[in-house]
Amino acid sequence: MTDPRPAPPRLAAPAEARARFRAGLRTPTSGWCGGWTQANLVAVPADLAYDVLLFAQRNPKPCPVIDVSEPGATSLSVLDGDVRTDLPAYRVHVDGELVAEVDDATAHWREDLVTFLIGCSFTFEDALAQAGVPVRHVEQGRNVPMYRTTLPTRPAGRLHGPLVVSMRPVPAHRVADAVRVTSRYPAVHGAPVHVGDPAALGIADLDRPDHGDPVDVRPGEVPVFWACGVTPQEAIAASRPPYAITHAPGHMAITDVRDAEFVVP
Amino acid sequence: MTDPRPAPPRLAAPAEARARFRAGLRTPTSGWCGGWTQANLVAVPADLAYDVLLFAQRNPKPCPVIDVSEPGATSLSVLDGDVRTDLPAYRVHVDGELVAEVDDATAHWREDLVTFLIGCSFTFEDALAQAGVPVRHVEQGRNVPMYRTTLPTRPAGRLHGPLVVSMRPVPAHRVADAVRVTSRYPAVHGAPVHVGDPAALGIADLDRPDHGDPVDVRPGEVPVFWACGVTPQEAIAASRPPYAITHAPGHMAITDVRDAEFVVP
Repeated sequence: MTDPRPAPPRLAAPAEARARFRAGLRTPTSGWCGGWTQANLVAVPADLAYDVLLFAQRNPKPCPVIDVSEPGATSLSVLDGDVRTDLPAYRVHVDGELVAEVDDATAHWREDLVTFLIGCSFTFEDALAQAGVPVRHVEQGRNVPMYRTTLPTRPAGRLHGPLVVSMRPVPAHRVADAVRVTSRYPAVHGAPVHVGDPAALGIADLDRPDHGDPVDVRPGEVPVFWACGVTPQEAIAASRPPYAITHAPGHMAITDVRDAEFVVP
Repeated sequence: MTDPRPAPPRLAAPAEARARFRAGLRTPTSGWCGGWTQANLVAVPADLAYDVLLFAQRNPKPCPVIDVSEPGATSLSVLDGDVRTDLPAYRVHVDGELVAEVDDATAHWREDLVTFLIGCSFTFEDALAQAGVPVRHVEQGRNVPMYRTTLPTRPAGRLHGPLVVSMRPVPAHRVADAVRVTSRYPAVHGAPVHVGDPAALGIADLDRPDHGDPVDVRPGEVPVFWACGVTPQEAIAASRPPYAITHAPGHMAITDVRDAEFVVP
């Protein structure tokens, strides 16, 4: 478990946060830039881009695509910065193996990379908090806990792999509210995929997440699981494409789009 | 204007409807198989599939993708039939030109075609009717009127073109209900893109739709416009890819998926 972080600058503008990450700050981004949409990053060579886009289309709950770059482009319509430097941390994957975790991906970037930005459940955490539903990992100053499940995704081309979920403990009498609030954000994972027993997802121990940090589950609380944008990283690990760059889990791209864009009335 | 059609078999099962179309029946499908999802069809050679999928991702209101086939496959997970025969009518496009309109596309099919099924506003018409909002083209036994607008879509690869919209006249005091009901279906065009003045969309005359049939707009009614799944066909006409097969406007694929799958609570 990591130590609690200092409180993130909740009211920072996206460009300001990105400048700090570009300058070398390495931190999970949960709680940063309230109201601005954060995104998972997956960059792959152009010849794998169709498989990634089709994998996302077939698995919209874990992989809601927010934007796709032109091949080789380092900025996107939703991110007026440089995707090679403006996230707090990146992972470089060769043949499905994690070969490097870096603050700056410039040296690893390739001219043929297509960058996908995929919605993140941090988008609905503000709405949960506003509804009075606790968001434990933010309260505890930790990264959200994420778990590889035994549920398969729907394969696409060369990509296959397990569903990854994030978990938030919710008091039993607020589970319905958590479902109701997050259902309104179908473009950023939407409603939970599972409520309750972790074992049904093949999760042996909530205190040992595969990514992120464990959080306290208190008496009377139910673990609630949402599809997670780290799913493509597990697909990369399982499918072993020659090359990919992703964000480090929890260390997201902060975009120039408002969370409010993704709410269904 | 076409003559009013006999009442469609509202309660037919999708497989039954597809069997009738396969046997040669040619009719618009509005009002058929109540509660079952209808879809636009676009089939393109595999080397254009990424551009189509990216075009859809960048233009989700007109192009909500429901399913994508494997290259050469003639059935899909949402359609347990044969996409070459099971729609009432098809269009064949060579270099962007409409070269044939046929009841059976088998002779025109190619082994490398990837088929996209794209959501259709017919999905929310049942919900509109249940809310007491009139659906004029169904009442009048006509195809829905569709119009090419002067609004551009967001280009993707080789594909670009204008937004196409469908129009339903709605009594002024029910416009809010029409917005509210259709907002709950973001995966099948969702809320209207425009309410009121057709000229603002570059539509000169509501009585002369580019596809489908005109319908009566009565005193006190406002024309309400939704993004339309014929948009990819106009992109094909504008962008002139070497080959494509589509459905004929209004003559949709009837899938084995329920409309209820697409409702956001």
